[in-house]
Amino acid sequence: MHGLEIERFSTDNHLSLIFRIQTEALKSIHDFLHEMDLVQLMPVILSPITDPLTHPVHDVRISYLGQELQLTKSMIFHKQIAIATLGVKGIYIMSPNVRFELGALEESEKHLLEFTQLDIELQGATAPEFMLLMENLIIHVFSQVKESCEKELDVLDVDLCIPSKPFNVYNSWNLREKYGSDFGYKISMREKDPFWITDFEREFYDKEDPHRRGHYINYDLYFPEGFGEVLSGGERDYEYKILLRKIQERNQDPTHFEHYLEYAKQGLLVPSAGGGLGIERMIRFLTKKKLIKDITLFPKVPGTRIVL
Amino acid sequence: MHGLEIERFSTDNHLSLIFRIQTEALKSIHDFLHEMDLVQLMPVILSPITDPLTHPVHDVRISYLGQELQLTKSMIFHKQIAIATLGVKGIYIMSPNVRFELGALEESEKHLLEFTQLDIELQGATAPEFMLLMENLIIHVFSQVKESCEKELDVLDVDLCIPSKPFNVYNSWNLREKYGSDFGYKISMREKDPFWITDFEREFYDKEDPHRRGHYINYDLYFPEGFGEVLSGGERDYEYKILLRKIQERNQDPTHFEHYLEYAKQGLLVPSAGGGLGIERMIRFLTKKKLIKDITLFPKVPGTRIVL
Repeated sequence: MHGLEIERFSTDNHLSLIFRIQTEALKSIHDFLHEMDLVQLMPVILSPITDPLTHPVHDVRISYLGQELQLTKSMIFHKQIAIATLGVKGIYIMSPNVRFELGALEESEKHLLEFTQLDIELQGATAPEFMLLMENLIIHVFSQVKESCEKELDVLDVDLCIPSKPFNVYNSWNLREKYGSDFGYKISMREKDPFWITDFEREFYDKEDPHRRGHYINYDLYFPEGFGEVLSGGERDYEYKILLRKIQERNQDPTHFEHYLEYAKQGLLVPSAGGGLGIERMIRFLTKKKLIKDITLFPKVPGTRIVL
Repeated sequence: MHGLEIERFSTDNHLSLIFRIQTEALKSIHDFLHEMDLVQLMPVILSPITDPLTHPVHDVRISYLGQELQLTKSMIFHKQIAIATLGVKGIYIMSPNVRFELGALEESEKHLLEFTQLDIELQGATAPEFMLLMENLIIHVFSQVKESCEKELDVLDVDLCIPSKPFNVYNSWNLREKYGSDFGYKISMREKDPFWITDFEREFYDKEDPHRRGHYINYDLYFPEGFGEVLSGGERDYEYKILLRKIQERNQDPTHFEHYLEYAKQGLLVPSAGGGLGIERMIRFLTKKKLIKDITLFPKVPGTRIVL
């Protein structure tokens, strides 16, 4: 039996403090997004389509009555379709994602096989508009946690700074030139507050700058002190011809995205911007725990055996 | 292509009303449970163990690095372990469940392959204590929705009644005698307000009355007008010998629940009561939609092809 895990569970009283902080953080997220008039949708767990991601993971397909389904890696396509269908200003979902990371991530301090994204999409929004919403959200959550969880933060020895707007913004191309390929970690170690990095070449759905091909109108939110990336997002491409070209440029198979592309072909998708914030990564930062597994009750670390 | 679904998406403006109501309902749930001082945990999607349920479903196992995992059918075991580990008064989780229902449910008005349970567990609570919490929650949610969504309810032609405490309580044995095996639907058609049915013989973890073997200290919450069951729960058995006997009585294999039983064997589990409320079933009632698929954006009806 797994005596170690049981021992950890029954003696680590930090967990109840961590989950009290998590409870306040989640409550303040719902309060803020409700105040912003966003519509909350339920998560999708299984679908014929999901995010192709930019890094390789084990591809698990599940068969139900002869149909192949995938576990959600992110709800990007469902978000784009939902926001166009409902015609609302913005949506959000507390979206569990499953990513069967390859064993190489076993040593990662910030990866879990399953985690929850706060997935947001705003109709017709620009990147700066989305970034401002997120800055306001982060400031609201940090402030609420600092106010409601003074005792818990004290026991955990966390000195939580409330960041000021606007957050610093860096361009990934400049950072890569200055710091090399590991620029994200290096600058996260230097910064004192949350900051943005923009313009990453990645998935086909992030908007490419029509005037500067190869550059993207997208962004990652980073936390300082080496905690690194906590949100990825961007403005979205939504026109059929552009999406199809970008899928082909990435040597991906358009038939994998068939129903999504059909929406685009019929002109049913709309401009939007959005992103996904990793809840567990935010809790890790709020509690200043080095290992993300230490803020979960039932740890699912890539490459390791799962107990519960 | 699936032109029909796309047409429905782009023309059914009821969906934006339904999701506005859902947003208010979810917000009022978080407000209420936060006020009650419950700790919110993140959902578990994959685990070596999950609820065996009392009705048969396709058993899907997923292999990750040689380990077999299941999609969560309910978080019952994780809830029992969590509440014992954290030593808090109560926990809740917005828990997506996947149940690969057999094709026979294709005609069901109230089943989805995936749905979200509001899963609650209260340490040391009795059945009446949990039932009172739920009655207060239902009254709070209905009142908030009625107040915030007057316009939406009006367009949907819903006359939402706010129930009074205490809800009616019926015993399943009496109902079965009076109405036959279909008693749940029949009494749901007769009632005007939410009500409870108690004492169901089912999963091994629901507490058996020690003085009346074969009777159980558990409950289902039903909605009236034929909408039927929306919550199942009970006091829990937590002692190793009792759990083991009940597993064996059901011809289930104790090794399937190995890590859970190890907690019980070490005396680490504690008395509790709880239950799981189907969010989509509640939204179906609040919007008085006959078919549960009509309150989802991406319908997943048992036995039918999944588009998105």
